[in-house]
Amino acid sequence: MANKRKNKDFNPNNCGVTHFLNKIGGKWKVLIIYAISLNCNRFSLLKKGIPTISKQTLVNLLKELEEDHIIARTVFPEIPPRVEYKITPYGLSLLPLIKTIEQWGRDDMAAVIKK
Amino acid sequence: MANKRKNKDFNPNNCGVTHFLNKIGGKWKVLIIYAISLNCNRFSLLKKGIPTISKQTLVNLLKELEEDHIIARTVFPEIPPRVEYKITPYGLSLLPLIKTIEQWGRDDMAAVIKK
Repeated sequence: MANKRKNKDFNPNNCGVTHFLNKIGGKWKVLIIYAISLNCNRFSLLKKGIPTISKQTLVNLLKELEEDHIIARTVFPEIPPRVEYKITPYGLSLLPLIKTIEQWGRDDMAAVIKK
Repeated sequence: MANKRKNKDFNPNNCGVTHFLNKIGGKWKVLIIYAISLNCNRFSLLKKGIPTISKQTLVNLLKELEEDHIIARTVFPEIPPRVEYKITPYGLSLLPLIKTIEQWGRDDMAAVIKK
């Protein structure tokens, strides 16, 4: 895992956009955070909510988001054990941005339909 | 190219975030648009500004952004021909969002330094 992320902090120009993309760029992380914020807070719910992601990718990305303190994972000692994800206070700083992304996407879809 | 992007419009839940990510998600597009907005408007300037991107990837992504009418490519009939990229009026709708991304990245880098 560490090896896969060796360029995670590569940002020679100290660019804010690069920093953001290094952290949660890529195809899925923004969507995973967004889904958790909508209470898709368990692995099975996330997998259902994002059907095109593979299980392994979802496992890896959840781990990375946890390592980066954007989400937190709680294991409830039940039988069978229940695992829940939630956005950390630090992760919450991303939500206004993700809401802006969501709004742009919605506006753009509406514009496409109008055409 | 078309084949590589066959899932581009796959958005079963009509989700704004998915729509955005289908369009300019991934590792580089936001950064390319941001760089062009800062007047890195030629291929060689973009390659210099984003040194970790491969030439072929940059070629492909510029084509995709052009296909999606986010950027426009102008060939000036000089010898040797000069090619310039610019953000289209439609692409400009992304800039406030990209500025928010840039600001988040900058704030987050500053917070990391403070720690």
